[in-house]
Amino acid sequence: MKLRFRPLMIVQRPVQLLVVGVVGLILIGTLGLLSPLAHTNALSWVDALLLATSAVCTTGLSSVNVAEVLTPAGQVWLALLIEVGALALLVLAFGFVELGRKNLMGRAQALEELGVRAGQDFRGLLHRVLTLTLGIQLVGAALLLPDMIRLEGAVKGARYALLHAVMAFGNAGFGMWPDGVARLLPSSLLTLMALVVLGGIGFVTLDELERNMQVRFRRGRRPPRLSTQTRIGLQVTGTLLLAGAALFAALEWNRAATLGPLAVPAKLLNAAFQTTVARSAGFATLDYGHFAAPTLLLIMGLMFIGGNPGSTAGGIKTTTAAVLLAATRAVLRREQDVHLAGRRMPTSTLMRALTVVTLAVLAIGLGTFALMLSDARQRPLALAFEAVSAFTTSGLSVNLTPHLSGSGKLVLVALMFLGRVGFLSLLLAFRPAPSPEMRLLRERDFTVG
Amino acid sequence: MKLRFRPLMIVQRPVQLLVVGVVGLILIGTLGLLSPLAHTNALSWVDALLLATSAVCTTGLSSVNVAEVLTPAGQVWLALLIEVGALALLVLAFGFVELGRKNLMGRAQALEELGVRAGQDFRGLLHRVLTLTLGIQLVGAALLLPDMIRLEGAVKGARYALLHAVMAFGNAGFGMWPDGVARLLPSSLLTLMALVVLGGIGFVTLDELERNMQVRFRRGRRPPRLSTQTRIGLQVTGTLLLAGAALFAALEWNRAATLGPLAVPAKLLNAAFQTTVARSAGFATLDYGHFAAPTLLLIMGLMFIGGNPGSTAGGIKTTTAAVLLAATRAVLRREQDVHLAGRRMPTSTLMRALTVVTLAVLAIGLGTFALMLSDARQRPLALAFEAVSAFTTSGLSVNLTPHLSGSGKLVLVALMFLGRVGFLSLLLAFRPAPSPEMRLLRERDFTVG
Ligand SMILES: [K+]
Ligand SMILES: [K+]
Repeated sequence: MKLRFRPLMIVQRPVQLLVVGVVGLILIGTLGLLSPLAHTNALSWVDALLLATSAVCTTGLSSVNVAEVLTPAGQVWLALLIEVGALALLVLAFGFVELGRKNLMGRAQALEELGVRAGQDFRGLLHRVLTLTLGIQLVGAALLLPDMIRLEGAVKGARYALLHAVMAFGNAGFGMWPDGVARLLPSSLLTLMALVVLGGIGFVTLDELERNMQVRFRRGRRPPRLSTQTRIGLQVTGTLLLAGAALFAALEWNRAATLGPLAVPAKLLNAAFQTTVARSAGFATLDYGHFAAPTLLLIMGLMFIGGNPGSTAGGIKTTTAAVLLAATRAVLRREQDVHLAGRRMPTSTLMRALTVVTLAVLAIGLGTFALMLSDARQRPLALAFEAVSAFTTSGLSVNLTPHLSGSGKLVLVALMFLGRVGFLSLLLAFRPAPSPEMRLLRERDFTVG
Repeated sequence: MKLRFRPLMIVQRPVQLLVVGVVGLILIGTLGLLSPLAHTNALSWVDALLLATSAVCTTGLSSVNVAEVLTPAGQVWLALLIEVGALALLVLAFGFVELGRKNLMGRAQALEELGVRAGQDFRGLLHRVLTLTLGIQLVGAALLLPDMIRLEGAVKGARYALLHAVMAFGNAGFGMWPDGVARLLPSSLLTLMALVVLGGIGFVTLDELERNMQVRFRRGRRPPRLSTQTRIGLQVTGTLLLAGAALFAALEWNRAATLGPLAVPAKLLNAAFQTTVARSAGFATLDYGHFAAPTLLLIMGLMFIGGNPGSTAGGIKTTTAAVLLAATRAVLRREQDVHLAGRRMPTSTLMRALTVVTLAVLAIGLGTFALMLSDARQRPLALAFEAVSAFTTSGLSVNLTPHLSGSGKLVLVALMFLGRVGFLSLLLAFRPAPSPEMRLLRERDFTVG
């Protein structure tokens, strides 16, 4: 009874597939980066491991300057790792469905887990999403091209345009210039922002929005109402971006080392850009080492919340934040159930939200603790910032990563892996199929973590 | 229909009674401290407000040296504020039951809210607990007396013995000497530790333990099994104390400014003492300004968890921590319900746990943010430590409170009030009475927050 066909064993444990897949990818990525074709200068195995993990987990933290240390081939290899990492969930789902073709229960469960509603054509969705994401990245690269050619010439410029589109959409912004992306034109910064937002919005949501727009503009009809999940994700995203940018601008407006010397439009653009990327992308236009403590704390808060579930973004996710606020509101109003967007939340959603917050607070706390031990001479706030950035796979840095000790770098590797794979695993964790009675009560499960 | 007898109105809103009561107590306390009888030197209204809030919320933070600024009468006034603050929950419950005497539903609900099981004699419990707590404090004072007389002479020594017993049991340790309580004998430190642990264990638990011991030792019979709530509280308390003390000792063992120069028994005693008081008492034997960053983070973690619910201790409480871990374990094991100590946890417990954690993280985050703005020149880690200490009403300080700006002190006042009254309010928040069906499923509500 215990002997079964191996692939089916894996199918029944998508989390194992995910862990094995990501570990394998990171190891292959590290070996690739260590090959003489990929790098020019010396590259230690710790730095290569950190870089590969950072790419696969779509973070953007690096202890070396990617533009200097990697050859053009190495940079393309890095972009490939980001692309596969960003699409990991889709790739996993594809493998899951392909392998589980004969296992109908497994297949139905996989669809449920991905938030695909019953009756949707999954292979069609996968095809559409892949086309859509590649299309978005190509359009982004085309928009970035003139500016990149202006800065780096034709050949390098074309490579940089593609690379930046992949990095922005994958929410893994590795700095190619010492001053981050500050030398780009405002139009290019806006393109990067758009790519970051689209990459962090979640694939299923993206697909829903695209079909909605097709109905509205091509067919001229009134599109169907957006799903609850999508509306909540967009609301939280919008609120965080506006409030975050306003607070950021207010805190840094007159500080000489950051926004102070800029003209007003540039101040606003930089505030908006930094707030957008803080939510997960890791590009910098300003030196984070010069930010005031409250600004760093604000950015840490934005990183902690992160983007939408099922996206390239990290953090506890917008929907988890919405669940936390809804539960708090319900308790303060002395209600017996948690309601969000008119639906009753099942216990399993609350359980997963509790788990996500507990693990996030524990991981960041222990990670910061470990960094304080391994790199005792660094500022505690900077170490906490780095730990949050790694665990939420945000990739922002107060210029600390290159100066960390070897064990400090390994702490970051562990945090990035936990932050990306841990939360994807929770997304795949079992949710009981809603019973007819539950449907009657308009109960609604929300994707958290 | 809208006109009702006023006391009954209050009875139906215990949270309002609590808020009005605590605000009134703090204002009366502040006025008392500002009277010329209570203080010798100049005492600003902000410092008096901070001190009164700190006493009523059983914190122990102060921006002035209590021994220097307050007269003996002022010190007795402070002790009274601590005593009333520590017994606030009991006082509230007493008023609640007295006023709601004719309101049977309200009375039953009040008992349910206090964790008193049906059929228990509430007035008897109140009487026993008051006798027990006053008795514990008197025994503590008697044990402290010889050491205090040795240090301060007969009159002042007697006052100090009583004062320290009240402060320790109330978990509000105001420093009377510049070096904290470092000049006390080891036996006195052990007495203080015992008082702190007993005060932080929760009144209902204390009563249960006392009756249990009576059965065991006076009547020589085997006592009944301890309640689930009590067992979990004791387990978490024991684990935190042992693990915390071991980590603390390991981190500071050889550091010259802290444990380094001490002999081994003194090292162990200090590690145990600091870990005990970190969980809420606010006495110091070492200079917190000299602790290493990881040690401060460890203490912040202990303060964050705090003591048992319904006690004088603050923090999210031991049972909340147990609920968080149980929910995480259930999700990782893909179980559909959360079980703790063999009982299924109802949704309301998970909701309250989510609320407690969300509010704690928000309050500490916003408080630290506000302190970083009001006192930008202070170290960020020290400000975060101070915010955690105030919100969890722990009262430990990296010697920062006296140096804060006026608005920084008001931030601490707000945090202490929120931390004490906010969590007591949540404790009183409505819990649906268990239905017979729920009892069948062996569902068990846990006190969190
Ligand atoms: K990222
Ligand atoms: K305290």
